[in-house]
Amino acid sequence: MDLKITLNKIASILLEKNLKIAIAESATGGLIANNITNIPGSSNFFDRGLVTYSNNAKIELLTVSKDLIEKHGAVSKEVAEAMAEGVRINSNVDIGLSTTGIAGPTGGSKEKPVGLVFISYSDKDKTISKKIIFKGSRLENKESFCNAALNLLFENIK
Amino acid sequence: MDLKITLNKIASILLEKNLKIAIAESATGGLIANNITNIPGSSNFFDRGLVTYSNNAKIELLTVSKDLIEKHGAVSKEVAEAMAEGVRINSNVDIGLSTTGIAGPTGGSKEKPVGLVFISYSDKDKTISKKIIFKGSRLENKESFCNAALNLLFENIK
Repeated sequence: MDLKITLNKIASILLEKNLKIAIAESATGGLIANNITNIPGSSNFFDRGLVTYSNNAKIELLTVSKDLIEKHGAVSKEVAEAMAEGVRINSNVDIGLSTTGIAGPTGGSKEKPVGLVFISYSDKDKTISKKIIFKGSRLENKESFCNAALNLLFENIK
Repeated sequence: MDLKITLNKIASILLEKNLKIAIAESATGGLIANNITNIPGSSNFFDRGLVTYSNNAKIELLTVSKDLIEKHGAVSKEVAEAMAEGVRINSNVDIGLSTTGIAGPTGGSKEKPVGLVFISYSDKDKTISKKIIFKGSRLENKESFCNAALNLLFENIK
């Protein structure tokens, strides 16, 4: 689905159900927040977006434990889920959404290649995540990560 | 100056001087963080970006006082400066940059029209701000606010 259509559908559903959202972005670096705040009136459902690039930011702002990062790495299913849950609980909102991955062009390894992303959705009933590997430039990967996260959000609120 | 050139110059200077930056965005909604994280290797100088759309987010994450927001409004020189200083100190980095404004199309008043933005730069020696009024669509205003903030940053670190 086209990004703009997805965004408009998400906005309508959040407004209709009176749900507030907060976002924790690592790999997407603010792209999700930027897309959401392009929607006029988004301040009615978007509470905050945290671009937690450093591990310190993840620990301080999202209450992701240092041990979890050391054990699994910042780019992992476990950290993605802790980020989505952390941003939801700390922001006192209904939904948390997160991304952690490797946009590239550097920072990849055999086990965790450039293009790898974990995205996570959290509400009061569940926290789920998805692992995807894309093959693109840094900017293409950021776009793909963002679209995947917004689709995960849409699937879980529609 | 072209946005990409400004960004590359900012990245070079921050890396060369070994300075870390954190950003607090209201009106730009993540656009500055997104532009900065488009630069490969930005994790070496970009610590975090906080898209503090709600007043609660400004109070909780940036230590902006509730009284200050009530007295001057969230879109004010005083709050812009408190945001830049707050994000710098709370993130334990060298430089804080902030934006607060009215991107539109709604939310404007005679005194504070759509297109109004306050941008602020803070380092250990000073905190300064600038008030500008642009005339554009929501997306054009976000772009203009972002470029103005990046220029303010560049002028103060070059």
